[in-house]
Amino acid sequence: MTQKHNPWVTASEVARRAGVSRSAVSRAFTPGASIAPETRERVLKAANAMGYQVNMIAREMIQQRSSLVGVVTAGFENPFRARLLADISIALTRNNLSPLVMNAEDPAQIKHSMEMLLSYRIAGVIMTSASPPLDLARQYLKFKVPVAMINRAADLDAADVVVSDNATGAAIAARMLLETGASRLAFIGPSKTSHSGKSRRDAFVRALKARPGKRSATVTTIVTPADDYASGANAAHELLAKAPLPDGVFCSSDLLALGFIDVARQHFKLKVPENIAVVGFDDIPAAGYENYALSTIRQDTERLASVAVEMLMERMSSFRGASRVRAVPVSSVVRRTCG
Amino acid sequence: MTQKHNPWVTASEVARRAGVSRSAVSRAFTPGASIAPETRERVLKAANAMGYQVNMIAREMIQQRSSLVGVVTAGFENPFRARLLADISIALTRNNLSPLVMNAEDPAQIKHSMEMLLSYRIAGVIMTSASPPLDLARQYLKFKVPVAMINRAADLDAADVVVSDNATGAAIAARMLLETGASRLAFIGPSKTSHSGKSRRDAFVRALKARPGKRSATVTTIVTPADDYASGANAAHELLAKAPLPDGVFCSSDLLALGFIDVARQHFKLKVPENIAVVGFDDIPAAGYENYALSTIRQDTERLASVAVEMLMERMSSFRGASRVRAVPVSSVVRRTCG
Repeated sequence: MTQKHNPWVTASEVARRAGVSRSAVSRAFTPGASIAPETRERVLKAANAMGYQVNMIAREMIQQRSSLVGVVTAGFENPFRARLLADISIALTRNNLSPLVMNAEDPAQIKHSMEMLLSYRIAGVIMTSASPPLDLARQYLKFKVPVAMINRAADLDAADVVVSDNATGAAIAARMLLETGASRLAFIGPSKTSHSGKSRRDAFVRALKARPGKRSATVTTIVTPADDYASGANAAHELLAKAPLPDGVFCSSDLLALGFIDVARQHFKLKVPENIAVVGFDDIPAAGYENYALSTIRQDTERLASVAVEMLMERMSSFRGASRVRAVPVSSVVRRTCG
Repeated sequence: MTQKHNPWVTASEVARRAGVSRSAVSRAFTPGASIAPETRERVLKAANAMGYQVNMIAREMIQQRSSLVGVVTAGFENPFRARLLADISIALTRNNLSPLVMNAEDPAQIKHSMEMLLSYRIAGVIMTSASPPLDLARQYLKFKVPVAMINRAADLDAADVVVSDNATGAAIAARMLLETGASRLAFIGPSKTSHSGKSRRDAFVRALKARPGKRSATVTTIVTPADDYASGANAAHELLAKAPLPDGVFCSSDLLALGFIDVARQHFKLKVPENIAVVGFDDIPAAGYENYALSTIRQDTERLASVAVEMLMERMSSFRGASRVRAVPVSSVVRRTCG
């Protein structure tokens, strides 16, 4: 790739026009640098006349760090992750950082992308739940690039973690289902492979057991390979094919819940919530569609993003130290599938 | 923001260890630069031993351009746009370019982001359909930053455009609806404010008229403010409240179609496709959900992304010249709402 035009006014050109040295131009644009006021004045006048913009790339080369932050994500078509990515990009920009997005769905590109990100002296990396293995985080940390992870389990020195408060969310879901009178409960989610899935399942089971003096509720777990619509539809086929049918289901994502509801209604002629109450997790736009009106636990993506950026910036100024974990509150959204 | 650690091995450190000048290290890593073979050998050995990585930021400062490409988008939660963004990021990475994402949903940030992108000497900008006004494109072009636009109308010198073949897509939709026997047709979409909406509407009306010897079909247009679910739901309330009811509806996005179908079924007790056939546009994941099984026109986001990147790279090597427009084929996906 060649570039035949050179649209940028360079510092040297500004220096020539102002009749000063190249380094005087640098100093004129560096806060606190030593330069005579009249020299500075001449540089600024020339720069202004010529449309000179400070070259961030040059500046960052000198400072040995950039304001670029790698955002490693995957599953863009998952509406929860899309909203999270949007909120991460807003949070970074508000802090004068720029999101360099790396799509981990393209495995051939992961290594290559990492090398590119490193060569840009990125200031940090944010990894979201669907992104690749922790090994990648370790490699960034080896280069002393701070890492913040969202909704992941990790105990890597210098890598901070922000998670939604899954335990509270799952306990709320349990209470919502029990309040409908449900006693044969089910959990659907990737509880073997996903940190979020596992912690939601564990907290759900715990919440059902911690009911002194109440009649006992049973709970069946359907372990799914992912948290998407197809996995929810498959789980419904598995769960509803044999008696006794559950009367309350907690899905660890809204997409799972949509797949479950569609199959329960269309293949098993069940009514939601009359026959089965359903609670999801995330609060994606489709949860609000008329056909679903899904009761769910809302994740606060704006807060997840801003906390991740905040922790990352703290690490930028002080890299060392044990991993920190912060939890972001969730809230219930009651629509028509439960309560 | 300060950085107290400096994790990167610098070229100067490599120079010291190799016992050569700083500029010899630069020349050793610059293809075609003049340097004695034994000097180059010493530099490479030292660099390797110290874990030195070529500093792209430094290199790009010298070359006056970066391999960063700004991707200006909005509406991340729209699954079509999310897929397009994912495909753009893959296409850029395959070409050794890196996507710097700018979220245009945050209007306060647009100007600031532009200044940041410019200060990084970005190699180009890709603007998607939901992104901000053309004025922004003009500003990039003023700085001789190439711009490629996806699914937008624009005739700006040096800004290229790639669009889905809306005319063919709309003509296919018309044929699919007519083949069900429908004769009272409707178009739903943002045909006043969106290039895609307008061109799909125009082509749909044209296709309905161009039927020599056939009985005539009527067409009603419901102009929506956006292409989202809520707009589709509102359009259904408007269209279905009074006779005669349409028997075939073309929605210029799948989200519009989902909103329309939910309201048609739940509020007006109509059956789709028995009472009304519906065709959407995009082929988002929800189009395949059991509840919708939406027949639609699929946009090839992979091809839209790769053509946009290709055109942008051509402009990087040769900026001047009139705007070019390329169309990417669409295809029909027949599910259960039509045909």
